[in-house]
Amino acid sequence: MSDLTDRLAQGLPAEAVVVDPDVTAAYRHDMAGFCAAGTPAVVVFPESVEQVQHVLRTATELRVPVVPQGARTGLSGAANAVDGCIVLSTVKLDRILELDPVNRIAVVEPGVVNAELSRAAAEFGLAYPPDPSSWESCTIGGNIGTGAGGLCCVKYGVTSEYVLGLDVVLADGRLLSTGRRTAKGVAGYDLTRLLVGSEGTLGVVVRAVLALRPAPEPQLALAAEFPSADAAGEAVCAVMASGLTPSLMELMDAVSVRAVNELARMGLPESTQALLLVAFDGPDRVAESARVAELCRAAGATEVVPAEDQAESDLLLEARRLALPAMDRLGTTMIDDVAVPRSRLAEMLNGVASIAERHALTIGVVSHAGDGNTHPIVIFDASDEDQAVRAQRSFDEIMALGLELGGTITGEHGVGLLKREWLARELGPVALGLQRQLKAVFDPLGILNPGKMV
Amino acid sequence: MSDLTDRLAQGLPAEAVVVDPDVTAAYRHDMAGFCAAGTPAVVVFPESVEQVQHVLRTATELRVPVVPQGARTGLSGAANAVDGCIVLSTVKLDRILELDPVNRIAVVEPGVVNAELSRAAAEFGLAYPPDPSSWESCTIGGNIGTGAGGLCCVKYGVTSEYVLGLDVVLADGRLLSTGRRTAKGVAGYDLTRLLVGSEGTLGVVVRAVLALRPAPEPQLALAAEFPSADAAGEAVCAVMASGLTPSLMELMDAVSVRAVNELARMGLPESTQALLLVAFDGPDRVAESARVAELCRAAGATEVVPAEDQAESDLLLEARRLALPAMDRLGTTMIDDVAVPRSRLAEMLNGVASIAERHALTIGVVSHAGDGNTHPIVIFDASDEDQAVRAQRSFDEIMALGLELGGTITGEHGVGLLKREWLARELGPVALGLQRQLKAVFDPLGILNPGKMV
Repeated sequence: MSDLTDRLAQGLPAEAVVVDPDVTAAYRHDMAGFCAAGTPAVVVFPESVEQVQHVLRTATELRVPVVPQGARTGLSGAANAVDGCIVLSTVKLDRILELDPVNRIAVVEPGVVNAELSRAAAEFGLAYPPDPSSWESCTIGGNIGTGAGGLCCVKYGVTSEYVLGLDVVLADGRLLSTGRRTAKGVAGYDLTRLLVGSEGTLGVVVRAVLALRPAPEPQLALAAEFPSADAAGEAVCAVMASGLTPSLMELMDAVSVRAVNELARMGLPESTQALLLVAFDGPDRVAESARVAELCRAAGATEVVPAEDQAESDLLLEARRLALPAMDRLGTTMIDDVAVPRSRLAEMLNGVASIAERHALTIGVVSHAGDGNTHPIVIFDASDEDQAVRAQRSFDEIMALGLELGGTITGEHGVGLLKREWLARELGPVALGLQRQLKAVFDPLGILNPGKMV
Repeated sequence: MSDLTDRLAQGLPAEAVVVDPDVTAAYRHDMAGFCAAGTPAVVVFPESVEQVQHVLRTATELRVPVVPQGARTGLSGAANAVDGCIVLSTVKLDRILELDPVNRIAVVEPGVVNAELSRAAAEFGLAYPPDPSSWESCTIGGNIGTGAGGLCCVKYGVTSEYVLGLDVVLADGRLLSTGRRTAKGVAGYDLTRLLVGSEGTLGVVVRAVLALRPAPEPQLALAAEFPSADAAGEAVCAVMASGLTPSLMELMDAVSVRAVNELARMGLPESTQALLLVAFDGPDRVAESARVAELCRAAGATEVVPAEDQAESDLLLEARRLALPAMDRLGTTMIDDVAVPRSRLAEMLNGVASIAERHALTIGVVSHAGDGNTHPIVIFDASDEDQAVRAQRSFDEIMALGLELGGTITGEHGVGLLKREWLARELGPVALGLQRQLKAVFDPLGILNPGKMV
């Protein structure tokens, strides 16, 4: 047993310190492709705050890097191991400590799975809105680390809107409490929001106070078919300018529609260039859907099909959720995550089409159109070296286009390893310099998730 | 002309550099009582980002403190001058640069008055929700500096929910851009939210990208009279647990009801111990009001009076808005700002009553009951030294009680000078230490609003 594992074992149960390479190999990386992943010295599974403190104290004493991990469903490589590191898995810190319908909060440990929290909240008539695609398996700790979004964001916002307070173990093992349990509070700098989206580079979240909302009514969806990205983009703008706020407004391009049909025989309309799904969950949802139908027709929709009942509505949303796995079957994929002002959505979509054409590649697009967040998915044959090079170029050109259109290189997936160089380009030297100084305040030895983000 | 004013005048219009003590005296302090206010060396009124940069560069070179100011309506002394400082007034940076109904954003300079932005947004069917009491005169820059709230927060949250991106002049004159113009974005640490509520201690906001919402329908209010704080608190909990989200849920105690009647002959019911005002602004507001009426009766309301029309509804809300000026007429006032979990509201109100009794003082209470934020207003005769001491003690005991109940010393007014010592008590040594290190990253010379907050 090495000095490191020996020291770790002094404050952790024996089964919580894993060095078997056959087991630890599974903890080398998250779901991002094309990111370097090192080999951890050890994977630990602490079950208490004190155990996490022990891990960090040990890491500081021995100057060993620590990579915090949730369910490894991330798409930016932020959870990838570095050689010789301690992977700190939070999955066994998985208790829902409180669910409080009067104060509309939940207090949870980081390993709680997103869907489990949603189901537990539902029993009190409450909802935890952030719903990333991986919601059935991803953890709240990972959601907080990446600042995860989902389909809900056009109406309900992203993770940071729902984090009121955090308990965080710092690099040296000290416990930091931030924020509050109250609906409002402005005592001191907002460290809570600084930590959300910090990808495990500033500390390890061990407890979170989350805001919940009353559960909405079931979503009622309609589908609108457009002959062009321009027409679909015009419809999105018209809906948002009209003062309506859908609970979901998603766009699928022809590639993603065909892929879903192939996977699941959904019978989605393959002649459409852009399929827009719009849903409402408020008391006026039938009337609101009717107004959207009108606006879509005025923008040039060739067909508008409101769901006839809840089952049909659910099926439409299921089709959207299947788009990523469906495209994964078509080849190796690189999923991008640019967000632009929604008024520039059509330019983004047309620009992606040009990039695909220029590089002779297939790029499927799904988009959280309502909030301008677009996921172009570059599909290629990784065994073809030339295609792989063109794929990487396309991926980069998509980010450049996003910035050019006043957007960001990442709407909800994070920076991690995948977009580190692009972060510098988006932030510029003043902001990047400050970010690095903030990192140094929290982690002067640079042991927390080194090489990620800034 | 001193070296300081000489140097300032090199990059500012002559009329933007004011040293006349008769004029600058007005810029010594905000509206907080009992806070030290120094004498500024000069008050400057820059009209462009470049001019602000010139001021900060000059201040850094000459090591002169800078106190940023908006409309000086703050209640914590955060805008108070220190001796020999440059007061940097942002009131002439007062342009609304963009109002964009498709992307639902406004881009504004810091000196824009909150109500002016609201009115401009209304022309596009949009709203900027944060509505502090001083909304007719306070500026967006001041709102961002303090993290201002208002009556809207139970449904719409506070200022930080609405700030997407900032341009900020740093202590050394460099320009920092944070955040985004998009609905979502997770590129790098969230410096935007770190700056909101930082009371001018980290930088000077010169431009803000703000999120807007579709304008809601007019609020429909009801008034419910309760024989005790316990009964009113029970009603508040019942409403929130029922899944309803009022657009406003305010509580006035007997002292504030009487004061408003004296000021404005409103005819509010003086026999009530707690008057609860509840409003809704959604399409179901009549039905929602009816449900609240039931819940209030079940909790022991002696009388529930729904507004019969919009005019009556507006009058009820006006009564609440008059509570602070009405109590100001009764003596010298110290307004506190604790927020507790709403389930502890009744304990807070009863505790304040005990404190008032113990110190033989009048303490009126208005509360944003829906979000647990309570403003106990200690009323006393400042010429009576013993009363003044008891007033200060009461003020402190109210904060101690707030912390004891799991709350915060400030829900929306900020720390400033008034609550500096209490901040340390709320944060504890780990968080306070980190906050001071963050301050040092942004402002290594300590020239930005020295002595405030941390």
